[in-house]
Formats: sequence, C-alpha cells, structure tokens
Amino acid sequence: MAETYGREDGAAILIIGDEILSGRTQDTNTAYIARWLGQLGIPVREARVVPDVEAEIVAAVRALSGRYAFVFSTGGIGPTHDDITADCMASAFQTGISYHPTVFAALAARYASMNIGTFNEARQRMARIPFGASLIGNPVSGAPGFQIGNVFVMAGIPSVMHAMLEEVRPRLPVSTPLKSVTVSAFIGEGSIAKGLADLQKKNPDVPLGSYPFSRDGKFGTALVARGTDAARLEAIKVEFASIMRAAGQEPLPEAS
Amino acid sequence: MAETYGREDGAAILIIGDEILSGRTQDTNTAYIARWLGQLGIPVREARVVPDVEAEIVAAVRALSGRYAFVFSTGGIGPTHDDITADCMASAFQTGISYHPTVFAALAARYASMNIGTFNEARQRMARIPFGASLIGNPVSGAPGFQIGNVFVMAGIPSVMHAMLEEVRPRLPVSTPLKSVTVSAFIGEGSIAKGLADLQKKNPDVPLGSYPFSRDGKFGTALVARGTDAARLEAIKVEFASIMRAAGQEPLPEAS
Repeated sequence: MAETYGREDGAAILIIGDEILSGRTQDTNTAYIARWLGQLGIPVREARVVPDVEAEIVAAVRALSGRYAFVFSTGGIGPTHDDITADCMASAFQTGISYHPTVFAALAARYASMNIGTFNEARQRMARIPFGASLIGNPVSGAPGFQIGNVFVMAGIPSVMHAMLEEVRPRLPVSTPLKSVTVSAFIGEGSIAKGLADLQKKNPDVPLGSYPFSRDGKFGTALVARGTDAARLEAIKVEFASIMRAAGQEPLPEAS
Repeated sequence: MAETYGREDGAAILIIGDEILSGRTQDTNTAYIARWLGQLGIPVREARVVPDVEAEIVAAVRALSGRYAFVFSTGGIGPTHDDITADCMASAFQTGISYHPTVFAALAARYASMNIGTFNEARQRMARIPFGASLIGNPVSGAPGFQIGNVFVMAGIPSVMHAMLEEVRPRLPVSTPLKSVTVSAFIGEGSIAKGLADLQKKNPDVPLGSYPFSRDGKFGTALVARGTDAARLEAIKVEFASIMRAAGQEPLPEAS
C-alpha cells in the first residue's frame, strides 16, 4: 500500500502535552488507540510523549513519520497559547499554515448558533490548518483535527479523540485484526519460564509474552499470544494451560 | 552535578513491553514516576514506550541516556524469555553481563527458604547484572533492579517499581520540589485564552497550561502553573481566578 512505501509497517503514537509528562494527567489515549488499531490489524511499534515545546514536537513527528506507515498524535490543537501542534506539524512537513476557509466558516456558524462563547481570536486559531492537510471531522466539539502526510492529528480529550478515530477509519487499510489469547494462574513466572521458552521456539513467528501480576495479595502470571491466525492462537492457548498444569497450577477462569 | 555534565537536566522515562504497545496493559508507571520525580524537583522531559525487541531497546537507551541527566526504565527484568532488558542495557553501554554472585546467593537463599518455587535456570537469569552496574534493592519480590550509568532499571509491576524508586532516592540530587497550582471552571478554553496568553507573557519563566476536561456532560477548563516558587504560584493562582471571573464563571472549589 502506498502509505508504507519506504517505511516500516505499523504505527507510532505521539502524545503531546506537559500535563502527561508532569504526571498530572494519566494518559489513556495510548492504550485506546493501540487497541483500536489492533482491531484493524495495525500494530503499534512505538509511543512517545513530548512536551509542549516546538523543537521537540517537530523532531518527534519527523522521526516517527519517516519510519512508520502511520503516526497518530493527540493533544495541542485547542485555542490557547500552549496549543502549538498545528504549527509544529506545518513545520515538520515544511509547509505553510493559515485559516482554513471552510473550517473558519463552520466554527463561526457554530459559535453564533450555540451558547458556548464568542468566536474570538483565540477560537479562530482552531481554524488554522497546515497547507495540504485533509480535515478530520469532530462531531463532539466542532474544531477538527487533520491528516498531514501519514500523520493523523487529533484532540487530546479522550471523548473527542475517540470520535476522530472513527472519522479516520475509512482512510486506513483493512487487514486481519490482531487477536490475542490469555491464560492466567497464580503461579510464579519462573515456574513456567522453561515451558514457555520451548513453546516460543516451536512458534517463532507468534510472539508469546509472560506478564506477572499481583491480585488479592498473590502473585500470578498471565501468558499471552498475539497474532492473526485464530486457530493457531487457540492451539497455543491449550499449550499455555498445559504448561500451567505441568507446573502444578490450574489456570484461572477466563475474565469475561 | 556530575550526572548532568554534557547532558540536559531532567529525566526521561522508558517503558519496555509489548503489552503496553498492544493496549493490553494500561501503563501507570509513567505518571507515577513523573509525580515522584516532581517531588524531588526533577522534571520529566520525554517518555517512550518500546517493544520487547533488542535493537529498539538499545537504541532508545542510547538516545535517552545520552541526552538527559537520568533515565528511568521499567519492565523486562523477570525470568522469562521475553525479559531481555538486562542484556539490552549491557549492550547499550557496551559492557558484559553475567551472574552477580551476591544476587545469585540471595535469590538462592530466598527460594530455598520460601514456598515460591525452585531456583531453576529461568529464575537464575534474574541474577544476571551488567558489569559495572550497582544494584537497586527489591524489598517486595527479591530480584533486584540495577543502575548502569545514568539509567535506573526497574521492574514493570507497579508495586515493585514503587519500592525500587524508594531505594533509588538517596542517589538522586535533592532540589526544590516542582509544585503546581490549578484553577478550574466550567468554561470553554477559548473564553480565557487571551487572558491566559497575557498572563504567560508577564510570566515567561513559569509554564502556564490550559487543559480542557469533560465532567458530568459539561466541558470545562483547568488552568495550571508549574514551578518551584510557591509564593509566585499562589499569585498566579489569584490571577487565574480573576481570568475565570472576567469571563463570567466562578472557579470551582478545589479538589481535596
């Protein structure tokens, strides 16, 4: 497909905002986008969080958009002085930026008809779109995101970002969804490590992961296999359960 | 301070693990580490999530450790085949790795004395520590993390990672904690953007942020100022409230 020419397949996520790096706000966009893309069969290869600093945003956009098929960014497209994402995207793609006439008119009409404040200079900034970008509709709060090159620029507010992803869906290639199977037990990772490593050797093309967890004060392990071949994953799931039982623990009932 | 010679101040966070990039696991380590470092006055400049792939981990460690004063990594130090962080750190710092005699003996004694499985080959892997690294104690589950150069290598399980951070605390410089003040109201960002931008111009050295939120179906804005000068932040807080009131909304009571 054209989007991946010269690039690695898969996507990167770029979270823009001081509030994530300060720990004030718990990011949930990364996990949401990753699961959403997984359903389309697009794996996420890397994620980065950068501050509201132009040079950092531009450098990250260039690094990620040059390497991966797609980049999904969130944050920094609002009306305040710290919302600099649109300018940074224009800079990263070495293009200009100005007030998009259709967006400007739509926002002007929205603010004229709804009791949500005046369409002042700050809000007009949200109509600034880099040249050559295509819009990403915002059915929640009006001000759009945009796609520039292989970068999808979305809002940081989760409810708005979720709606924008649905607008983006038709632009993405459809392939086989990434599925996963999980088997968990209250057992130490070290007790199943050899069986798991042997299983991985027999299935070098299916990544097998082991994730320790702590629940009700007890440590346990979740074994996870990911891939697109459902029958193969089901067979591995049976093997996971055998490994758990061989180590003396019955697998836990599956989470519903 | 020696650690920052030739590097930028502040820290980077490196989250290692396929389970974060697939969206299976919601990362909370970034926000926790960021808030914890903020209390020590160490700002987080960047965060990255990379998969369980050697080349990716090594490249990220080199990029981040070369640029920032400190790097905090989580994940990949357990006993299973996908736990490759220790080897990657040795590779990134171009040093060797082997079984650390003290760690090996301590883990052997721990498994001999507790009913938590045998000290098999897989668990012995957790005693492999890069040459030249210093240990980070693990009071929760035994297997230590380590510091190599300016990189603190910690477990991915939050409860273990939290305990490891406390072990690291004496190695970090003490400076003035980063504080923040927040004023929120049910008001659109666009209504306070100009007042906020003017306030930012008057206080160019204090980063002011505006964060839209949605609560009880209503959109609101939180204004946040960050810095080390408490008196200055309190003065800015008063200005935040004035900006909200000038736009027609009383600030919300502070969250307790």
